[in-house]
Amino acid sequence: MRVALLNTGTELLLGDVQDAHLAFIAREILPLGLRIEEQRTVPDSEAIRRSLAELFQRCAILFVTGGLGPTSDDITREMVADLLRLELRQSPDLLASLKRRLRVRGIKWTSGIARQADVHVGAKILPNHNGSAPGLYLCANINPQIQSPHLFLLPGPPRELQPMFRTFVMPILRSIVPASDLIERRLYKIANKGESLVEEAVGQHVLAIPGIELGYCARPCEVDVRIVGKAEAIERADAVIKSILGPAVFSATDETLEEVVVKLLVQRNQTLAVAESCTGGLLANRITNVPGASAIFSAGYVCYANQSKIAMLNLDSQLIEKHGAVSEQVARALAEHARACAKSDYALATTGVAGPSGGSPEKPVGTVYIALAGPGETIVKKLFFPTDRETFKLIATQAALELLRKKLIAT
Amino acid sequence: MRVALLNTGTELLLGDVQDAHLAFIAREILPLGLRIEEQRTVPDSEAIRRSLAELFQRCAILFVTGGLGPTSDDITREMVADLLRLELRQSPDLLASLKRRLRVRGIKWTSGIARQADVHVGAKILPNHNGSAPGLYLCANINPQIQSPHLFLLPGPPRELQPMFRTFVMPILRSIVPASDLIERRLYKIANKGESLVEEAVGQHVLAIPGIELGYCARPCEVDVRIVGKAEAIERADAVIKSILGPAVFSATDETLEEVVVKLLVQRNQTLAVAESCTGGLLANRITNVPGASAIFSAGYVCYANQSKIAMLNLDSQLIEKHGAVSEQVARALAEHARACAKSDYALATTGVAGPSGGSPEKPVGTVYIALAGPGETIVKKLFFPTDRETFKLIATQAALELLRKKLIAT
Repeated sequence: MRVALLNTGTELLLGDVQDAHLAFIAREILPLGLRIEEQRTVPDSEAIRRSLAELFQRCAILFVTGGLGPTSDDITREMVADLLRLELRQSPDLLASLKRRLRVRGIKWTSGIARQADVHVGAKILPNHNGSAPGLYLCANINPQIQSPHLFLLPGPPRELQPMFRTFVMPILRSIVPASDLIERRLYKIANKGESLVEEAVGQHVLAIPGIELGYCARPCEVDVRIVGKAEAIERADAVIKSILGPAVFSATDETLEEVVVKLLVQRNQTLAVAESCTGGLLANRITNVPGASAIFSAGYVCYANQSKIAMLNLDSQLIEKHGAVSEQVARALAEHARACAKSDYALATTGVAGPSGGSPEKPVGTVYIALAGPGETIVKKLFFPTDRETFKLIATQAALELLRKKLIAT
Repeated sequence: MRVALLNTGTELLLGDVQDAHLAFIAREILPLGLRIEEQRTVPDSEAIRRSLAELFQRCAILFVTGGLGPTSDDITREMVADLLRLELRQSPDLLASLKRRLRVRGIKWTSGIARQADVHVGAKILPNHNGSAPGLYLCANINPQIQSPHLFLLPGPPRELQPMFRTFVMPILRSIVPASDLIERRLYKIANKGESLVEEAVGQHVLAIPGIELGYCARPCEVDVRIVGKAEAIERADAVIKSILGPAVFSATDETLEEVVVKLLVQRNQTLAVAESCTGGLLANRITNVPGASAIFSAGYVCYANQSKIAMLNLDSQLIEKHGAVSEQVARALAEHARACAKSDYALATTGVAGPSGGSPEKPVGTVYIALAGPGETIVKKLFFPTDRETFKLIATQAALELLRKKLIAT
């Protein structure tokens, strides 16, 4: 079945907001053997009508996102009604639930809000538990006189669309997709290795397996190897990849590096503290994004300023003066002192020059020391990632987490 | 001039990676009076050829991203050569610079890498200072026998594309765009207010100004009001919006809330510490994402565990026992102790239930206390954001930063 996604929203084409729906929906529907074959973005204008008309002809399932809200630029509902010559009727139930929602949250009623209770005759309401605009499902050829695909009108904000999709859209998709052969997608994530090296290692061996589609995706300090195919071919490719890459693969089940590290610590009943200079809290933030991190996360010291390295972690001011805050010695001391202060099993520390300013000939922007203090020893690595500030922080935390992961799986 | 963007990459349609190019390019080209009128995403397959052929007919400027790398699924260069019947020739200069780049970084040479030195006859090379694959510019109708737009082939990774776009693509665009009337886009960002309320306040007044396109974008704990139009109309709308919304607008120049807060603190020569329980480092991370934050950021205490609240910030264990870690009293103590420990002018603290587990009938998931300790007084706010863990953290930090901003502009 041909599937397409139409994102509506002038804010997308003006760059005020980035689309998250394509990635989310693609991953959700893949196990049904469905792939999005075309995705388009159009502004809140007549372009919606034109694209809808074109896509109605071409696809069997069409997801449309955005334009269901209360403001004057929300016109998707009306354009679909117009194209399919369907009447919009106010749903008393929806109106009552909208009023209730606003009352509970103490939000004032404005005139546009009631439009969100309008429903195409024959459409199914997809309840929105995280916002006011409901989604709508219009089955294929809902008006028998006009050719149309299975049409899902979904709200723009990802935190509204995503739970709605899982709870209400997926069951409908399962009922309309023929019980054809299921396919599978697997992702192998590798930290600290280049894309070319990874391809050279596994490429030809995986491509020798019939029925496997192979792809790579390079991210900051990470390469993802992706295979798609039927179950039997996937199992063969899986064995090949695992035998070649071994423990370099930090996840074969689409976990983040922080999820893997938290899981390893939980399994070992061990704890972690972090002392962050140049990464400024990102390492703690990534770790605490993982549900259940409270079991293993002892403390985070964001000691950006030299004074705070001394005050928070009792660093010797002379050590900083002698070697500089960005040095192997200070990285080592930060990790060891954080481990001692927090009484944790492990401690990671980062100190470096994130830029854009603050570099010097000996320590240019991009220089970073990563230290790991553990029960046995302290490891310090010097790395160099000359890039923008936020990518630098991301790569430095990635390198720190990978250092800890390697230590944990080796002990 | 009609502008389109074609993103290539199976990883985009499988959901392994999210597009960032549409937003970036849209914002860069708007001041030239250019808007992307259509954006498409297609997989690394024959679909690229089909979309290129369709878009060649329709637009005057076409940006194509991805598919220029060294791996077997990188086929954009070859498909363009094929469609435009242009020969690809290896550039000795590019080959030499690729070899140099790999040598410096200690990356092994693999056979696919040399393809990145292939250039269409007549194309202009757009140097890549952040990766190996160069971009290419093919002027309109580069092969006089085939209709084609101004065509920019750009690398997939945003950190490669973005500097290349600013340095090499923008000058070319300025030379091909007619010196028509420039347009302008302005964005007004408001924290802690609903979209409907904002529209009710400003909507009709702004729409009464001819030539203004008005839009809204709702984000977690933020509404952005966007106006687009010619300079004179923009100035009128700007005055109207500012007079109605006043200090509720935290930025009219597209800054983030953390940028605004850091700037206010720098102007006042004041410092900030943070004590984060439920936000787990995100607040420190947001603040330290701002270049120059080191001047104002004293210290960050990520005291997720109760024990770390006591050890890092000398909280009274009985206070936590009596009121619970998620309480007005503990929030207040965290902020006041952080301010004292870090000897800062202000301190923000967060404590709450991020979920998905850990809630109780009195303190359900989504409950959060935000505290601000300052020279005069300590303010504590109880808020309720029942949502997913990461959005919760984002909203809680947004509320904390807005609390500080309001305090700073009022004093």
